[in-house]
Amino acid sequence: MKQRKITLTESEIPTHWYNIMADMPNKPLPPLHPATQQPIGPEALAPLFPMELIKQEVSTDQWVEIPDEVRNLYSIWRPTPMFRAYELEKAIGTKSKIYYKYEGVSPAGSHKPNTAIPQAYYNAKEGVKKISTETGAGQWGSSLSFACNLFGIECEVFMVKVSYEGKPYRKVMMNTWGAKVHASPSQLTQAGRSILEKDPNSPGSLGIAISEAVEVAATNEDTKYALGSVLNHVLMHQTIIGLEAKKQLEKAGDYPDIIVAPFGGGSNFAGISFPFLQDNLLHGKKVRAIAVEPTSCPKLTRGVFRYDFGDTVGMTPLLPMYTLGHNFIPSPIHAGGLRYHGAGAIISQLLRDGLIEATSINQIECFEAGVLFSRTEGIIPAPEANHGIAEAIRQAKIADEEGVSKTILFNLCGHGNFDLASYEQFLAGNLVDFEVSQADIEKSIAELTTPTI
Amino acid sequence: MKQRKITLTESEIPTHWYNIMADMPNKPLPPLHPATQQPIGPEALAPLFPMELIKQEVSTDQWVEIPDEVRNLYSIWRPTPMFRAYELEKAIGTKSKIYYKYEGVSPAGSHKPNTAIPQAYYNAKEGVKKISTETGAGQWGSSLSFACNLFGIECEVFMVKVSYEGKPYRKVMMNTWGAKVHASPSQLTQAGRSILEKDPNSPGSLGIAISEAVEVAATNEDTKYALGSVLNHVLMHQTIIGLEAKKQLEKAGDYPDIIVAPFGGGSNFAGISFPFLQDNLLHGKKVRAIAVEPTSCPKLTRGVFRYDFGDTVGMTPLLPMYTLGHNFIPSPIHAGGLRYHGAGAIISQLLRDGLIEATSINQIECFEAGVLFSRTEGIIPAPEANHGIAEAIRQAKIADEEGVSKTILFNLCGHGNFDLASYEQFLAGNLVDFEVSQADIEKSIAELTTPTI
Repeated sequence: MKQRKITLTESEIPTHWYNIMADMPNKPLPPLHPATQQPIGPEALAPLFPMELIKQEVSTDQWVEIPDEVRNLYSIWRPTPMFRAYELEKAIGTKSKIYYKYEGVSPAGSHKPNTAIPQAYYNAKEGVKKISTETGAGQWGSSLSFACNLFGIECEVFMVKVSYEGKPYRKVMMNTWGAKVHASPSQLTQAGRSILEKDPNSPGSLGIAISEAVEVAATNEDTKYALGSVLNHVLMHQTIIGLEAKKQLEKAGDYPDIIVAPFGGGSNFAGISFPFLQDNLLHGKKVRAIAVEPTSCPKLTRGVFRYDFGDTVGMTPLLPMYTLGHNFIPSPIHAGGLRYHGAGAIISQLLRDGLIEATSINQIECFEAGVLFSRTEGIIPAPEANHGIAEAIRQAKIADEEGVSKTILFNLCGHGNFDLASYEQFLAGNLVDFEVSQADIEKSIAELTTPTI
Repeated sequence: MKQRKITLTESEIPTHWYNIMADMPNKPLPPLHPATQQPIGPEALAPLFPMELIKQEVSTDQWVEIPDEVRNLYSIWRPTPMFRAYELEKAIGTKSKIYYKYEGVSPAGSHKPNTAIPQAYYNAKEGVKKISTETGAGQWGSSLSFACNLFGIECEVFMVKVSYEGKPYRKVMMNTWGAKVHASPSQLTQAGRSILEKDPNSPGSLGIAISEAVEVAATNEDTKYALGSVLNHVLMHQTIIGLEAKKQLEKAGDYPDIIVAPFGGGSNFAGISFPFLQDNLLHGKKVRAIAVEPTSCPKLTRGVFRYDFGDTVGMTPLLPMYTLGHNFIPSPIHAGGLRYHGAGAIISQLLRDGLIEATSINQIECFEAGVLFSRTEGIIPAPEANHGIAEAIRQAKIADEEGVSKTILFNLCGHGNFDLASYEQFLAGNLVDFEVSQADIEKSIAELTTPTI
């Protein structure tokens, strides 16, 4: 019997997160104050985040110890399994080896609890009573609800209205873990009201929901804010994925040539790739790390590198990023987690320095890959995860055409149990691909008044 | 750090299923022909099942080897983890130790693929092109769709109409794995048409859907039928759960005093308990095995032991069982997998011989237990699984009152990702408990014309 899964025991859960900031040849430029556009220090973030997370955000320590209590709660679902995709390899007839790390085994169904748990932990330790956040498709909101509940912290989630209405079960999941969920834009915040004044039927967006959640944290003494991607500390927490994956591949006697992951704000991609990129930066390895974004939201492949806001209203600090402009509204593809205008500062710097790669794929090709995957490997993936599968298949085919065998690793970041309405649309032939015109991108970027780099 | 999960490697997946028939002091009475009411031999089942499964159905071999191909496919999600429920124990303040085996990690989300995979395998090996089946809440239909797809067998599922309409995503899941799904009763079968003539708005029932699926198999040369519970071979396949659990508890240096599992037709309960019951039967152990049924469908606790049909129309062989009568319609509780009128022959014989126990719990207590579980252990359980949790909590409290510490093991048979509508109802305070009157039970049983025992 071939070994399909490579597993680790609880005692093999890594003890430290990896902080790529330590090893980057060029560090990201500093965040700027949203009003003064001057560099800000850590203290400016204090209204939003607990001090320990702010320290992590600016840390250049190579390794940050994972607290015992966090490791203990990680063990609810970690270590996650790594699979050799024998059946998928057979189906596409490749000579390459394909591995995937499966993060869908967490109670919330994705990799997001990897950072939700430590974020809730550090908040609880500093006496925070409530955390506000936003969620698009619901994966981050579910994960933070799950984590806050474990620490007895109140959780308030602003959920993009179109998802709130279209994905009612994600909302119930959050309620089951005790969280309060509002459709965004809401009447509860100044940011929400200002959007609704202009457009009472606004379907909402991640950028708007961030504005609402940040406002709640900024205006309430005992409330902090939490973000599920983009920021340095979030990306660092996710390196638990790649650190486990390294151990697992070592057990399999293998090492990747190519690492592939879907790209929304960067946490998925950073999580699986950074620990291997360290080998590139320090030990002369040459792993190719490829971030896969949807063609309809092409910040890495067609965006501009400059300062931009993380939200729509302009409340967050300005970060150096590849962006389509914070007012860019992506087409309504079925991969809500990837519909975000910008990329994290670290990822953006790595891309600018040519240390990682980016590509984009249309949603129909992604769903084709997802259905093929479900019919070969068994698991029905989240639409976001399908982007990684589609690129892994592309890379395997390229290798076959070149007559070589590659070792390809991708991050299967979540299951699709809450996304079956989109599979229904795909199977019925009702999905379309969206093209983004160069004029639309240029217009959105031209509207920016934020500093260029 | 306390060890939360006890895991096994793929090489530790058991090599044989355990067949309790070998060790039962009294074997179940033989099945009878539905028309003649005379005992039938294995050959009478040939239109419905492949020969290898019929052999397993009547086998008294203690151990049946698991084919390599089945073990290989089991490894998609097996071995499943066992957890020590530290957080639940703390929340209820018990001195007892509570363990649970988690079967929700399968791609279909429950324990059902444990038998779907071997059933599809033996059918494929004997050249069967299509399998028909029924499904209630959708767990069995999903699992068989998943398994058939892996062997290139067509799968046709009759889904109880009320679930077909109320749980659309389960249907899409089956479609994603390539299965055809019909709302039952349908116009596609004589059985379905006869029900619809009497009641065009029939919401359907598991018994009706079985009639339809059996008819399709009986009247098509290249089509066989598959059942997700009740039958001996199905229960045997599920012993993979308990066999793994034994190894895991051994690693933890423990052994259960009490085993608890939800009860629908018996496969869940048999799966976790039979390998331990062998120790009772042969090695003088005294594990208490408790089957937990919903108060609104109390076949084990309030039914009669006699021959009855497995379906509504009366097409299946007559089996010796605890039954509420095959026309009994349970109240509409949110645990579709437990709404079945009868119990498997082996389970019924074990209960009659006092070798296992049964109890019933109302749905509100079950949902309370499920929400407590999700807020302590993290996983949101299926409503069926909540029955096991509720009884485990009851047993822990009884032990505390007696001033003793017990080791309690329950089977967490599936996650609740497709059942969040019922959690929504519970959290909103909209659920009610249903009482079944003694008169209704007696009336349903009095209608039976099947042989008494």
